[in-house]
Amino acid sequence: MRRFVVLGHRAASGPGFSLKDLGGTGGRIDILVRCVPAALLVSHGLREDVELYTVHLGPPDAPKVVRYESRTLKSLRPDERSTASLVERALGTPTTGPVWQESSAGISVAAIDLAELLGKLPGALFVLEEDGEDVARAEVPADATFVLGDHLGFTEEERALLRSRGARPVSLGPVSLQADQCVVVLHNHLDRRERSA
Amino acid sequence: MRRFVVLGHRAASGPGFSLKDLGGTGGRIDILVRCVPAALLVSHGLREDVELYTVHLGPPDAPKVVRYESRTLKSLRPDERSTASLVERALGTPTTGPVWQESSAGISVAAIDLAELLGKLPGALFVLEEDGEDVARAEVPADATFVLGDHLGFTEEERALLRSRGARPVSLGPVSLQADQCVVVLHNHLDRRERSA
Repeated sequence: MRRFVVLGHRAASGPGFSLKDLGGTGGRIDILVRCVPAALLVSHGLREDVELYTVHLGPPDAPKVVRYESRTLKSLRPDERSTASLVERALGTPTTGPVWQESSAGISVAAIDLAELLGKLPGALFVLEEDGEDVARAEVPADATFVLGDHLGFTEEERALLRSRGARPVSLGPVSLQADQCVVVLHNHLDRRERSA
Repeated sequence: MRRFVVLGHRAASGPGFSLKDLGGTGGRIDILVRCVPAALLVSHGLREDVELYTVHLGPPDAPKVVRYESRTLKSLRPDERSTASLVERALGTPTTGPVWQESSAGISVAAIDLAELLGKLPGALFVLEEDGEDVARAEVPADATFVLGDHLGFTEEERALLRSRGARPVSLGPVSLQADQCVVVLHNHLDRRERSA
């Protein structure tokens, strides 16, 4: 299983943002929204064995985590607007604690923070850092979780948490990319590795 | 210079599609729209020395090509809706022939087809095909153009045209990706190559 965790430091944690201005009204929730097709879609359908977790740390109801599971997702359109509608529905689904509440097929939400989320995820933990080991050379098991920052990167507290959980820093190349682009590039390196294994 | 050419076999060639349903009303113009930030944006701004060309072959006014030049683009937001507005403005700009008409800073349009476009582009020509040589091993000069299909791939006529222009087939890995994902992965392999050169 490949798992991606993407942090949205100011991303809306409830519904009500405008689909006409996701970035402005949703605290750059557009960054998280674009990671959904990046993580889950390939040319003509869904990937297998992928989970994405978007961490919503902005108002009004933080923290919340939305989970997207390829195993149970029925369908997903690649456009940003329809994906944003699914995310909004998840954020509007009543949830008060760490139990996942399903908002639509394959998408669920819980009121947890990054530490609680990491506690739920098995497998090896990696964090994307520009000075990390090149992912093309790093040892990555098939069951792995990758944590990505948004446009604000990581806070010192988040870095300390990730270190305490043993997260290994990996990098993707010489150019710093947007979060959804990082997910796409990660997939490509892991696809190549699996094929040659 | 890196150049990307993306074909939209049914993509709208005039304005008037709905920003609420790009795919349905614009002939999957959303595929082309998503290639714009994929080709031009990195973490905190614009790439240098990149040109993207989207080829619009759907109604009402095909063929048209929209050109996006990183050299003269002033700014670009990563979200699909604002990019679609820029594309719509380009498609609504009067143009009757092969002369580029600027619709906004760094974006221009011409009434040309793929053959005419390729005639305008210098440098080595590549085409993304699943059975092509792995781009990680292929010889790619710094001045190169990559032609990508949409969800419909390439027609036999397009393949014949590309062959006649000496386009070399390259592939990106074992998994078939969406056009914007292909652009992101291509960039990563070329970034790595440049850095190690």
